[in-house]
Amino acid sequence: MLSTMQDVPLTVTRILVHGTLVHGRSRITTWTGEGEPQRRTFAEAGARAIRLANALRDDLGVRPDGRVATLLWNNSEHVEAYFAVPSMGAVLHTLNLRLPAEQLAWIINHAADRVIIVNGSLIPLLAPLLPHLKTVEHVVVSGPGDRAPLDGSPVPVHEYEDLIADKPTTYDWPELDERQAAALCYTSGTTGDPKGVVYSHRSIYLHSMQVNMAQSMALTDRDTSLVVVPQFHVNAWGLPHAAFMSGVNLLMPDRFLQPAPLAEMIEGERPTHAAAVPTIWQGLLGELTARPRDVSSLANVTIGGAACPPSLMEAFDKLGMRVCHAWGMTETSPLGTVAHPPAHAIGTEKEFAYRITQGRIPAGVEARIIGPDGERLPWDGAAAGELEVRGPWIAGAYYNGPNAEPLRPTDKFSEDGWLRTGDVGTIDPEGFLTLTDRAKDVIKSGGEWISSVHLENGLMSHPDIAEAAVVAVPDDKWGERPLAIVVVKDGATVDYAALRSFLSDEVQVAKWQLPERWTTVETVPKTSVGKFDKKVLRRQYAAGELEVTHL
Amino acid sequence: MLSTMQDVPLTVTRILVHGTLVHGRSRITTWTGEGEPQRRTFAEAGARAIRLANALRDDLGVRPDGRVATLLWNNSEHVEAYFAVPSMGAVLHTLNLRLPAEQLAWIINHAADRVIIVNGSLIPLLAPLLPHLKTVEHVVVSGPGDRAPLDGSPVPVHEYEDLIADKPTTYDWPELDERQAAALCYTSGTTGDPKGVVYSHRSIYLHSMQVNMAQSMALTDRDTSLVVVPQFHVNAWGLPHAAFMSGVNLLMPDRFLQPAPLAEMIEGERPTHAAAVPTIWQGLLGELTARPRDVSSLANVTIGGAACPPSLMEAFDKLGMRVCHAWGMTETSPLGTVAHPPAHAIGTEKEFAYRITQGRIPAGVEARIIGPDGERLPWDGAAAGELEVRGPWIAGAYYNGPNAEPLRPTDKFSEDGWLRTGDVGTIDPEGFLTLTDRAKDVIKSGGEWISSVHLENGLMSHPDIAEAAVVAVPDDKWGERPLAIVVVKDGATVDYAALRSFLSDEVQVAKWQLPERWTTVETVPKTSVGKFDKKVLRRQYAAGELEVTHL
Repeated sequence: MLSTMQDVPLTVTRILVHGTLVHGRSRITTWTGEGEPQRRTFAEAGARAIRLANALRDDLGVRPDGRVATLLWNNSEHVEAYFAVPSMGAVLHTLNLRLPAEQLAWIINHAADRVIIVNGSLIPLLAPLLPHLKTVEHVVVSGPGDRAPLDGSPVPVHEYEDLIADKPTTYDWPELDERQAAALCYTSGTTGDPKGVVYSHRSIYLHSMQVNMAQSMALTDRDTSLVVVPQFHVNAWGLPHAAFMSGVNLLMPDRFLQPAPLAEMIEGERPTHAAAVPTIWQGLLGELTARPRDVSSLANVTIGGAACPPSLMEAFDKLGMRVCHAWGMTETSPLGTVAHPPAHAIGTEKEFAYRITQGRIPAGVEARIIGPDGERLPWDGAAAGELEVRGPWIAGAYYNGPNAEPLRPTDKFSEDGWLRTGDVGTIDPEGFLTLTDRAKDVIKSGGEWISSVHLENGLMSHPDIAEAAVVAVPDDKWGERPLAIVVVKDGATVDYAALRSFLSDEVQVAKWQLPERWTTVETVPKTSVGKFDKKVLRRQYAAGELEVTHL
Repeated sequence: MLSTMQDVPLTVTRILVHGTLVHGRSRITTWTGEGEPQRRTFAEAGARAIRLANALRDDLGVRPDGRVATLLWNNSEHVEAYFAVPSMGAVLHTLNLRLPAEQLAWIINHAADRVIIVNGSLIPLLAPLLPHLKTVEHVVVSGPGDRAPLDGSPVPVHEYEDLIADKPTTYDWPELDERQAAALCYTSGTTGDPKGVVYSHRSIYLHSMQVNMAQSMALTDRDTSLVVVPQFHVNAWGLPHAAFMSGVNLLMPDRFLQPAPLAEMIEGERPTHAAAVPTIWQGLLGELTARPRDVSSLANVTIGGAACPPSLMEAFDKLGMRVCHAWGMTETSPLGTVAHPPAHAIGTEKEFAYRITQGRIPAGVEARIIGPDGERLPWDGAAAGELEVRGPWIAGAYYNGPNAEPLRPTDKFSEDGWLRTGDVGTIDPEGFLTLTDRAKDVIKSGGEWISSVHLENGLMSHPDIAEAAVVAVPDDKWGERPLAIVVVKDGATVDYAALRSFLSDEVQVAKWQLPERWTTVETVPKTSVGKFDKKVLRRQYAAGELEVTHL
């Protein structure tokens, strides 16, 4: 029996047309640092997106499937590119402006970007790269900033406003397959080369619906969303697309991401929703404590990207800003879970415990927890395993360069195509996810997992210990066992047996999980973002550079 | 550039699995008329759905693509069938228990239903049909009601509870194409044969997301939805599917659709949402006026299926029940528009005017207004034309019987595949739809449309006129012109010239829209549901049976 429904593709084009037409009065407000913010209606921004598409095609020769990169802050022009590029059948590549220059060049070359749209303030980052870029044919500059470093550029440089000025405000959008590539974003790649995730029109459309569902961020045209999470970071968690779908006003901070201007824009523009990583909110909290402001409009704050400390959540609750925890990653578009407590817990003492989980699995996402031996673990809130996810906005592979098949490394994707998140945690009987470890940080001992994070936190709670890292090392009998690496506080002496007893008696670590191998270092090596660099420790151990005591 | 996203189909199966697993504690409460309602969790109902699927396949021989019909009230068993049948790859056919017996038999034969699940109370309707049904092989009876009329049935009769009692609670669900048929619903067919709309898994899935979007019904697991709109009527506006997607508790009235039990279930079960047609609410309002009850839980009431009288909306507002108008039809799944006022109108005197429109177009639906000569009219809130819609949950054809291509009558679908709704109205610059006429009731005069409804309402506001109908009649010069047919009140005499002046001066009808042709009848012929039967009037005019005065 054939369905009689229309076969209409789910495309970014449809979101653009809808937002421009039906929600033409909704606004994008971009912070300018001084004086009035820049204000554009969706009708105006939509018309500019159409002019941009005409310019990209007619002046810069962008063809279907051509890559257009953005090196931009969160602002109206970036939203315009979000819609213009995929709607014309090309692929938007958002560049992470925090990356080291060499990695940025590698990514641009790997993606074969033809055009780069850059904010004036980021020219100093881009200009030195240009001689190393193999495929870039045009640079387009938008917003304030000295253009001088682009003098002598190997490729033509255009002004965004000049480029779109005389262009038509109509475009005969191509009919697109919803599974076609729409946007490209590379993961930051702490191990190995950065990996490209290619979002389809379909995945973006479905994810936008999910964002606006009452069970997720519940946004409507009565909302204004302060989008602090960068547009180069997983499509700003899908908020620009979700905004055009439901007429949600956008408040864009541009490069003004410091606590003081953020507090100022919240007080002045009265957003009802905001989205950012915990560190941003931690800074904002300090600012609001030092200089109180009226932030009462902000009833709905989405925090994700890293676990939100419970203390931060409580502090925001007191200010009337209700934090909703969410979990996701570049590979999950990113909405994986959202921590709205279940109805039966609301108003009870259990409510907060649900809010600090990573959140509940929505209908679009399937999840499973896989134990050390590949077995599927129960949703009992206790059994911990690696989280694997499946769904129409979840990556099933990585971009592998032009004309190459998508890459499916077996440590990242299961045989049946699920994403291995690399996160370890539990799921409770109602689908609430709690993450405890990164998979690469757990120790697989005799078919059971030992949490290195749990041991580290336990050790660091000892009064003599300044820092502690625990890594897995090979063991003939158990496969892997934990190695405890401690940094002793000034003036303290180390007593491994006492530390071991402390873990057992005070931290209540199970006997079989207690480390036998111990060592002391002067300082734990760190990555560029301040995380423990366990790769270095593992290498030092393997090379015999650490003096290990066996208990 | 290939997208790297997973290719996961959007299926009813996914909704079932999600609702059973993640929202297992949410509940279906079915009214029983006396004593405690029947209460089942989603986990229990989901397990029963799986047992039903096993029974349908193993005991009743239902195969992929096989049709399973339901002749059921809104209750837990009907929800179980909603999920069991499509998930196993078969097609759910919901039968309208209000149809005349011959039409019901015609529909069952046309759909080639193999199994009918019937409520005990509806056996008197089904039993006499059985000898006329050509494809039905099994009847399954659920709930109270005398089974005696099924004695001597030409096909085996089973008890629902016996059938599913010993079945496994697991089922190896087939991998389905999301464009595959999931459910079938016939339009009531006021003209010609009933027409079947075949919903796909994809259309149901996307529509469920739309229902739960904050911009639509905004439902979550904190809600309980009183589903008065029948499950045989466009999937109960998608609410059972939407409920399993987001854990929304369902309150099902079964056969207790009278005002008194409805008031009782609202007071007793405290639903937060309800959905029904205006007549149901009109009855409930009378009941609540006569016997006030605590209905304060019901903050969110969706009214659709027919225009909601503004007075009814105001009366419910006063009771603290906020009415939200919505428009749709069987062919639109049904969510076509939802009347949430735009942000800028909230709290202003304009707010109510937006609420009594049919509503605003959501992102999933494209709409256009087509004028008398096929031209696309502007969205200015003034230009009236026939509404045409397009989208992934909008029908593009009708079911044309086994092994036949879907039917696309040109009066129902445009050449480029849009649904011609048969409704005439305007769209304002922000996408708010206001319907004024049925297309078959407007008069196309010299390339402009004249609203027969407007003329009728004008005539019926004259003190001498009891009833008035206006139909289009052929005219050599103008193509069509209006014929005014009036019923004069007892004791009054008719003066066509005076009526014409009344329309012009008092009702402010434009001169070119005033009827020249007038006639008087004793009573306007009516259809079985009490509407003016204009087909009869047009036929009488064509046959020269009406004595027409030309002014």
